[in-house]
Amino acid sequence: MKNIGVILAGCGYLDGAEIREAVLTLLAIDTRGAKARIFAPNINQHHVINHLSGEEQTETRNVLIESARIARGEIEDLNQLDLNTLDAIILPGGFGVAKNLSDLAFNGPNGKINEQLKIILQQAIELRKPIGAICISPAVICLGLGEKSPSVTIGNDEGTAGAISSLGGIHHNKNADEIQVDEVNKIISTPAYMYDQASISDIAIGIDLCVQKVLEMA
Amino acid sequence: MKNIGVILAGCGYLDGAEIREAVLTLLAIDTRGAKARIFAPNINQHHVINHLSGEEQTETRNVLIESARIARGEIEDLNQLDLNTLDAIILPGGFGVAKNLSDLAFNGPNGKINEQLKIILQQAIELRKPIGAICISPAVICLGLGEKSPSVTIGNDEGTAGAISSLGGIHHNKNADEIQVDEVNKIISTPAYMYDQASISDIAIGIDLCVQKVLEMA
Repeated sequence: MKNIGVILAGCGYLDGAEIREAVLTLLAIDTRGAKARIFAPNINQHHVINHLSGEEQTETRNVLIESARIARGEIEDLNQLDLNTLDAIILPGGFGVAKNLSDLAFNGPNGKINEQLKIILQQAIELRKPIGAICISPAVICLGLGEKSPSVTIGNDEGTAGAISSLGGIHHNKNADEIQVDEVNKIISTPAYMYDQASISDIAIGIDLCVQKVLEMA
Repeated sequence: MKNIGVILAGCGYLDGAEIREAVLTLLAIDTRGAKARIFAPNINQHHVINHLSGEEQTETRNVLIESARIARGEIEDLNQLDLNTLDAIILPGGFGVAKNLSDLAFNGPNGKINEQLKIILQQAIELRKPIGAICISPAVICLGLGEKSPSVTIGNDEGTAGAISSLGGIHHNKNADEIQVDEVNKIISTPAYMYDQASISDIAIGIDLCVQKVLEMA
């Protein structure tokens, strides 16, 4: 049975992991006969957003503790992730990837990626282990791997596609129910809620295709 | 297109809605061609649990605001739910149903159900609109509708099944990928994470069967 590391960035699309993308990733991994191991960094979120009003709340939440809500407590600190024990990694999206796992949301292509995550991504390339990248994650992966010229999709958002290009990546427009496969770097991406009005069933198709390809290449 | 009200109890299985059950419910509704409208009460959670440690945190969170994380902001106050605009309602599970939408978790069959929810459930029975009940929700429904002798499943947990019996309900043991159908009251239930080690793919099957039957009976 293949072991897939799923890296979460919190719990809620405005300040953490996109919940639906995370759950659909876990569903696809299980349905296709593999085992998910969930990881998140033990750091504070950049901020907390009230998902009803869209406004910032004056409180502090921890990425690992909030991610544990999606993981039902079965989660490991990202600093414990050993790629030798995994066959592939997948990053669901959500603003948390661009706010907690990097500062892409604030500094665009001039941003920095979490150092732990950067090392994991570079090791994945070296070890030829596939990387699944959902929603905004491909852009953050380009922050860490731009020199590898990753071929990815984040849908059709021109600003984010431009950031990917200026980081050295190659962007391809895709729909929510489609994937982009980078055969050289073994990076498989799907836009998911980058199309914020896409249907959850189309997003489920795109994520399932992504997981299927990740497992096939692992 | 049928409109299905999905009632959430927060965001996280220990103090709110079971996230995966909520997402799988939304997926099944969309895949089967119906439209979900999400509701939650504008009340504080009973408490906040750290989902990594299992311990209570000294903070306050609001059920409607936290549920909005799963709803991506597209959520309505439960007091705005008008059953005349809906074809059915579905309650995903999670301890929040037993802690925020009722006090079943603390007082068992002597507990009380949220007054707004009680009225909605009684109206659903009167108007012959189906009720989907996932995980612990069937027990809470019996708190509100015990006199109707609902025929339900919460899996095979003897304590909860006993509470259902003492409230006037009739309990049937079912697996995570099965449903119990009460043709008289139009209540369709599935155990989901009442089996806390069940696979997410089995739970997805049970929830999809539940949604399919809800839509068929609506």
